[in-house]
Amino acid sequence: MNNAYVHGYHSRENIRLQDQANALVELLHFDTSYPAGSRVLEAGCGIGAQTVTLARNSPNALITSIDISADSIAQAKRNVEAAGIKNVQFRQADIFDLPFGRESFDHVFVCFVLEHLSLPVEALRTLKNLLKDGGTITVIEGDHGSAYFYPDSADAHKAIQCQVELQGRAGGNALIGRELYPILTRAGFSAIQVSPRMVYVDSGKPQLVEGFTKNTFTAMIEGVRDAALAAGIVEPRVFDRGIKDLYRTAESDGVFCYTFFKACALKA
Amino acid sequence: MNNAYVHGYHSRENIRLQDQANALVELLHFDTSYPAGSRVLEAGCGIGAQTVTLARNSPNALITSIDISADSIAQAKRNVEAAGIKNVQFRQADIFDLPFGRESFDHVFVCFVLEHLSLPVEALRTLKNLLKDGGTITVIEGDHGSAYFYPDSADAHKAIQCQVELQGRAGGNALIGRELYPILTRAGFSAIQVSPRMVYVDSGKPQLVEGFTKNTFTAMIEGVRDAALAAGIVEPRVFDRGIKDLYRTAESDGVFCYTFFKACALKA
Repeated sequence: MNNAYVHGYHSRENIRLQDQANALVELLHFDTSYPAGSRVLEAGCGIGAQTVTLARNSPNALITSIDISADSIAQAKRNVEAAGIKNVQFRQADIFDLPFGRESFDHVFVCFVLEHLSLPVEALRTLKNLLKDGGTITVIEGDHGSAYFYPDSADAHKAIQCQVELQGRAGGNALIGRELYPILTRAGFSAIQVSPRMVYVDSGKPQLVEGFTKNTFTAMIEGVRDAALAAGIVEPRVFDRGIKDLYRTAESDGVFCYTFFKACALKA
Repeated sequence: MNNAYVHGYHSRENIRLQDQANALVELLHFDTSYPAGSRVLEAGCGIGAQTVTLARNSPNALITSIDISADSIAQAKRNVEAAGIKNVQFRQADIFDLPFGRESFDHVFVCFVLEHLSLPVEALRTLKNLLKDGGTITVIEGDHGSAYFYPDSADAHKAIQCQVELQGRAGGNALIGRELYPILTRAGFSAIQVSPRMVYVDSGKPQLVEGFTKNTFTAMIEGVRDAALAAGIVEPRVFDRGIKDLYRTAESDGVFCYTFFKACALKA
């Protein structure tokens, strides 16, 4: 099973993922809260960027967070302890081979994970087996094809396409956000409700200009420069102009748009 | 002044524009309502597709709707009369040469108009002169670069690009939605708030599949076929595959996304 990641395993990346989580917490998570005593599986917690919010919004739920990377789990534990959170247990485990019995959980939460998997529908089927009947799954994913901006720039789109191409070569799908409805359908879930969460940034929102346009999205694309050049996907000067043009959208007359997709569905 | 339109002047188009208005009324207009006795200018009412909603949401406001086309005004009058609406006056007039004194209006409403103008900032400045101090302007525009879908299709994007290219050649801008913040800034408005209105369509929303994906968006792109071929922008088979792929997004596992932008700003 190819679970290779394009991003996520460097310490500067850890800081970026934390920044992203802080800027987007309200937009993505405000409407996820689980009842007291319910058992929740967070599948693919990474360094715990979402775990802290998940646990804070459901302080009396019993959360189990798993990740395939022992290093990420160790960092996630530190992040959760630093936040004073007590209702999360961690386990290192593969999403395709989880050490839990059928129908162990009331709810499953999956955030920024399916984009990295070559078999997202199979992953969802595996998670469905762990859910009790009537349990819910919540999935959040981005979609890099949802990025557009003013001033527009063909080079900026080419730079973004490098990330899409690299993630695809690693077995993932950077355009998976728009696909949540069909993949949840294929995995056998019902009552699927998809809610797009658009991030709209203009200079009237300086925190988002810094926190999203520059430090989250453009920094992420900038981070694939070496890999994109090594793979021969793009000419260096095209990529560099693209990055410059992405930063240009953070100036006073610039606008940047990106959409995350959040889906909730039932195991009927 | 080049006010050429790419679409809007054929009777099948009139039906399409009415369908579009019905499907999107709530999303675009629910939060626009003007106080009793306030004087509102609707600049560029076309065939009155938005006028009926505007007048219904503000039944005691005094609405003046203008358009450059006498034929459109005649149709708009019929639409408004058929709806039993009494608080709208119509005048045929050019947005750049309006027969009203300075500060004649409390509010200005502009919907699907700036996309057709070669000088949108100048149009907004002209409208600002008609506003009283402290008056508001509301602007709604689409953005064809905001369209993305599953299954993705390069040909579908090429077909959409034909409409963008034709509208550009006619002096307009089919990507103007994302630019509302900078153009309102340049026109001298203040307290600009832009609110994106994303239309997300999957097969769980059959009315939107019909009313938006097929009968509004894809029908509009399909409608530029002859002009695009005559202009030599695209090969017929590429365009036709693109249209087929757009209809493909309306099938049971398809997804279609499009974003309108609504801005409100003050004359300070």
